[in-house]
Amino acid sequence: MAWAIAEFDGRRNICPLSWQMIVSKRPPMMAICLKPSRYSHNLIVNAGEFVLAWPGDNLADITLELGNSTGCDVDKFTANKLTTMEGEFVRTPLIRECIANLECSLVKQITTGDHTMFIAQVMAVWVNQNPQRPLCLVNDYAGYDQLGEKGGYRVGAVRKRLR
Amino acid sequence: MAWAIAEFDGRRNICPLSWQMIVSKRPPMMAICLKPSRYSHNLIVNAGEFVLAWPGDNLADITLELGNSTGCDVDKFTANKLTTMEGEFVRTPLIRECIANLECSLVKQITTGDHTMFIAQVMAVWVNQNPQRPLCLVNDYAGYDQLGEKGGYRVGAVRKRLR
Repeated sequence: MAWAIAEFDGRRNICPLSWQMIVSKRPPMMAICLKPSRYSHNLIVNAGEFVLAWPGDNLADITLELGNSTGCDVDKFTANKLTTMEGEFVRTPLIRECIANLECSLVKQITTGDHTMFIAQVMAVWVNQNPQRPLCLVNDYAGYDQLGEKGGYRVGAVRKRLR
Repeated sequence: MAWAIAEFDGRRNICPLSWQMIVSKRPPMMAICLKPSRYSHNLIVNAGEFVLAWPGDNLADITLELGNSTGCDVDKFTANKLTTMEGEFVRTPLIRECIANLECSLVKQITTGDHTMFIAQVMAVWVNQNPQRPLCLVNDYAGYDQLGEKGGYRVGAVRKRLR
């Protein structure tokens, strides 16, 4: 799973995503899907850009919190004590605590049923030098360490190799 | 990971995919990405439909074989002793050995960099009553059972819970 980070005209938000996919290697492109009702939706439409960030297993509680609150009411950055960084190509902030941040420039947006798909070119990738395991939406296989559950979502990470 | 199954004008093919995603809940819709050079690409363009099937861990070797051969040269169905079933909404065959088969009717196709994205409405879902674990492209975390490797691809499944 990933976080979509959006900022426009002084308003900013972070929302956890489970629908994101690579859609081109050259140039590198990603697609994400958001419901039009999500607070981040129109921020992305207006900004023409977003940041796609990957949370590690140390961000399990915060990810569940992000998914169970709305940016209408609260600034999720300060509420969750997240540190922002400046990107090189986009104005949207990056999140220092994440495993990786992708600066994404919107190429196309299309309606797919009850969601909007945002298709973007990846302009730059920032990788944390101290990476945690990627956070996943998980089921009850033993291969996952279960790290938290809230609002119908359960997060975890694939278990580390033991040697 | 999934298999895309395509058939048009007497030609048919199966190709393993790692880029597939749900893009709408109501109606249910999926998107997949294929390179235009793939043999299945024009079959899907011409047929206006495809089947998306999920292989289980018992299909690891066949999945690697499917990804390392081309439908130009060989009928992958007979070469891999796969059993076809008829769908209800599409002419493209389903694969009995898979965990699930989705009948997909093409809604839109767009170019995303070096790939084509096919966006489809899911018309019907067939679920195997005797499901295996879903096959994944894997890395070397211990949480995966590694089931095979060929041509740069490694497949496996999330380890089962031991009680």
